[in-house]
Amino acid sequence: MLPTIATKPVSPYSAGLEKTPANFAALSPLSFLAKAAAVYPERIALIHGRRRISWAETYARCRRLASALQRRGVGVGDTVAVMAPNIPATYEASFGVPMIGAVLNTLNIRLDAEAIAFQLAHSEARVLLTDREFSGTIASALALMAHPPLVIDIDDDLYTAGGELLGQIEYEALLLEGDPDFAWQLPADEWDAITLNYTSGTTGNPKGVVYHHRGAYLNAVSNIISWGMPQHAVYLWTLPMFHCNGWCFPWTMAANAGTNVCLRRVDATLIFDAIRSHSVTHMCAAPIVYNMLINTPPAQGEGIAHQVSGFIAGSAPPASTIEGMERLGFDITHVYGLTETYGPASVCAKHEGWAELPLDERARLNARQGVASPMQEAMTVLDPVTLQPVPHDGQTIGEIMFRGNVTMKGYLKNPAATAEAFAGGWFHTGDLAVVDPDGYVRIKDRSKDVIISGGENISSIEVEDVLYRHPAVEVAAVVAKADPKWGEVACAFIQLKPDACASEADIRNFCREHLAHFKVPKSVVFGTIPKTSTGKLQKFRLREQIREETAMADAPA
Amino acid sequence: MLPTIATKPVSPYSAGLEKTPANFAALSPLSFLAKAAAVYPERIALIHGRRRISWAETYARCRRLASALQRRGVGVGDTVAVMAPNIPATYEASFGVPMIGAVLNTLNIRLDAEAIAFQLAHSEARVLLTDREFSGTIASALALMAHPPLVIDIDDDLYTAGGELLGQIEYEALLLEGDPDFAWQLPADEWDAITLNYTSGTTGNPKGVVYHHRGAYLNAVSNIISWGMPQHAVYLWTLPMFHCNGWCFPWTMAANAGTNVCLRRVDATLIFDAIRSHSVTHMCAAPIVYNMLINTPPAQGEGIAHQVSGFIAGSAPPASTIEGMERLGFDITHVYGLTETYGPASVCAKHEGWAELPLDERARLNARQGVASPMQEAMTVLDPVTLQPVPHDGQTIGEIMFRGNVTMKGYLKNPAATAEAFAGGWFHTGDLAVVDPDGYVRIKDRSKDVIISGGENISSIEVEDVLYRHPAVEVAAVVAKADPKWGEVACAFIQLKPDACASEADIRNFCREHLAHFKVPKSVVFGTIPKTSTGKLQKFRLREQIREETAMADAPA
Repeated sequence: MLPTIATKPVSPYSAGLEKTPANFAALSPLSFLAKAAAVYPERIALIHGRRRISWAETYARCRRLASALQRRGVGVGDTVAVMAPNIPATYEASFGVPMIGAVLNTLNIRLDAEAIAFQLAHSEARVLLTDREFSGTIASALALMAHPPLVIDIDDDLYTAGGELLGQIEYEALLLEGDPDFAWQLPADEWDAITLNYTSGTTGNPKGVVYHHRGAYLNAVSNIISWGMPQHAVYLWTLPMFHCNGWCFPWTMAANAGTNVCLRRVDATLIFDAIRSHSVTHMCAAPIVYNMLINTPPAQGEGIAHQVSGFIAGSAPPASTIEGMERLGFDITHVYGLTETYGPASVCAKHEGWAELPLDERARLNARQGVASPMQEAMTVLDPVTLQPVPHDGQTIGEIMFRGNVTMKGYLKNPAATAEAFAGGWFHTGDLAVVDPDGYVRIKDRSKDVIISGGENISSIEVEDVLYRHPAVEVAAVVAKADPKWGEVACAFIQLKPDACASEADIRNFCREHLAHFKVPKSVVFGTIPKTSTGKLQKFRLREQIREETAMADAPA
Repeated sequence: MLPTIATKPVSPYSAGLEKTPANFAALSPLSFLAKAAAVYPERIALIHGRRRISWAETYARCRRLASALQRRGVGVGDTVAVMAPNIPATYEASFGVPMIGAVLNTLNIRLDAEAIAFQLAHSEARVLLTDREFSGTIASALALMAHPPLVIDIDDDLYTAGGELLGQIEYEALLLEGDPDFAWQLPADEWDAITLNYTSGTTGNPKGVVYHHRGAYLNAVSNIISWGMPQHAVYLWTLPMFHCNGWCFPWTMAANAGTNVCLRRVDATLIFDAIRSHSVTHMCAAPIVYNMLINTPPAQGEGIAHQVSGFIAGSAPPASTIEGMERLGFDITHVYGLTETYGPASVCAKHEGWAELPLDERARLNARQGVASPMQEAMTVLDPVTLQPVPHDGQTIGEIMFRGNVTMKGYLKNPAATAEAFAGGWFHTGDLAVVDPDGYVRIKDRSKDVIISGGENISSIEVEDVLYRHPAVEVAAVVAKADPKWGEVACAFIQLKPDACASEADIRNFCREHLAHFKVPKSVVFGTIPKTSTGKLQKFRLREQIREETAMADAPA
């Protein structure tokens, strides 16, 4: 028995130290914009074609937007939707809409009219800002709706391929209605909603993921810390702002007082031109975008002497992508997350010792999902049933779970799905992974992408990783195919590089050299692989294709 | 009248999106330590003489401390005091004590027994960790107390000048009582107290400034952002950890997964040696420390090829100090704050254009108090009576006020002082300043340091700035002296550089060249200027000296 201290008095800290306006403010990324404008009013916030917009102007335009929306009756808890690419209006909406307590819903510009109409109705959107490029889809969507929102057109000069103005007023005219000195306010509670992002579910209706001011603030800062991002970065908008609010980078760039280089369209020439012209220092993208850069003729990248730092995420990057970008002189960091975690909530934090390793080994280490990002509380891999952690053996598969402030507020009007996602005090990602001995998480598969063949689990990612190493392969996707003997077998879909050729036998022989026999795809299909608007491979389509073929084969002749 | 949107529905965001353990965690800097240990277990966290302590070991030692204290009866809301210089034990206490919800009070090691006894009694400290070096003071302090705390000795090998062990157990033995895998918990509320810092008030009893976990977390991160600090910085502990918890840098360095270079004693040779041996990248200090480096023979700094980034604060830095450090190759950033704002809560954020300016003009711009730091909500200059902002004219004097999350919880057991400090929703600093046209705050004086001479205000800082430019002046302090004609006049106290000489007439003539006539000190006193333990000039002593001399002169002969 240790000697303890005699008496335990009442704590002197228990009273008289309450919150006041002097020592407590709601955490909100809106504060970053006010600061950037106050401290660096003349610095360039946005580059869009030949336009240059300073932080002072950006702040004034955001306040005009907030004020104009408020004058038209938009207020706390109202949804304002935006259908636009990475242009200043989308950036400005990231601040102007929440300045009045309204909630921004950036729509995926590649969705069809029905999906758009569903989301506008589900979110009860009161206003829609829409770029001329999408007037066809939007007109159809509005026609489907019983109570369409107020429509505001964005008439961007840089879009020259037509389209129509559908609404009552154009965006710039709307801004003129607003007060550039509008006295916006921080949210009453930092837990208040700031944005809404629908998950691009492959089946069923999409779920509306709600973010709050606190989480947006913290993830915006976390991006800076995990990247070791210096002030005044020049950020190229290759990642859509409609995808998890561009992983919170609209707010990050205000906190960083950097420069946003807008990009209406993801195109290798445009990207290399922007990097060269504006000395871009940072960008984010899915593996498919980086692969496009890798497969561009080297002349495109000429004249770029500085290093560009790239975040990669969206799907597990093949090691070959990380290798290829490193050869192009990029410094690539792999991050991982979901719509539900504000975009990236983990980072494959690098270690100094890795720099000495051979490129392929380094790429293998860097391709992992890594560890919780600086301001997410925890990422772990748990047995999905018992919620017990798996051993750090690089072998035992469990489900990746997150917990902390960079996890959504919940699904809009869907308490059952919210409760299910948060069961047991963790956010369940649905992604299966192992933990390596160094504590880094390594994804094995989406739950539904595991192929169970003769009682053995086959990770489709493992097989894809091998396929990507084949010199003729541009895109690879592996899915389960029903098999009378094995239950399931692996079926590989291959999109070859232009001018490359390979036979089914070539591919299978190559796999046999690098994989256990049971993991080798039993069939190989060549052709273009369908992708979602955010660059994810649409495996459900490949599965449908297999089912149809099987059904036809089984049909009576 | 603008057309508004027809009906305002009930917000869809108003229900079903509550906080859960999956999506809400208390903000606490303790999380940074757990992450540093998990991701970079082998990296060096602490260097102390020949000792190297990794992040894994540091985490284990902090958990041992927490566990051992808990086993001895320490718990939520109990105060644990530390009397020690910048050594590993002090660093570990910054985490180990709050891990069990207890509150750390780092004592100023230069205080006398009476002041220590007052603070230990006022904070109701239940445990005191004390370094052998201070056993004389501590023994006297304990003798003054009716209910002394449990005493734990820190027996640091690097201190070789004697001293005694006073307590029941030595620190390392205490750690052995604790569990290195102790399951600590985040605070129940991020608003819970984490530390207590007494202000080094010049009169009356000191006030106990209480910090909370939320503020400590945010200011730790704010340090990284405002410095653009890359990961894995090497931080030299020139700034005392007992001063506003080292401006929150113990926590910053965990968030940064960097290396802390301990320093028992501020000494130019030790500092240059540490910078050279450990490739120090960052340090913080008061102007007096930088002046010491400037006045060290150049040979001391030889062999240091890399640039060191320095935060300077503690008192307004003379432009000559910033100039001098720049000549030594340091990159100096001025920050400003008070104990009540967790140390620095504003930063003189640099602008690219300044780099082209002449050194003295650049130093003048860089010496200002600047703008609110990234995670403090606001700093402003208000009329102290009306709380209206002063115009940004560089002329109109008001009081510097802060508001936001990096402002103390309040004063311990002193609701009246807390209410006064937070009157009108702002924290009143007592510092007088103007706002320049670029929005940067520039301090003019402590309220009580303004000299009012013939109805004109004289800023003692302005006069001191001129005095520091005189080649013979090492330290200068200007205070008010009662004057039958003018009410008050400026009186200059001058500490000359070793081997330098200057007469009163030299000094006054020099001032006359650079200042309006009424601002020139009417008298000049040569000698050593007394400083507080944190390097602040003790102007109240100089005022006492003047009063005594005046009284003697007035006394009947």
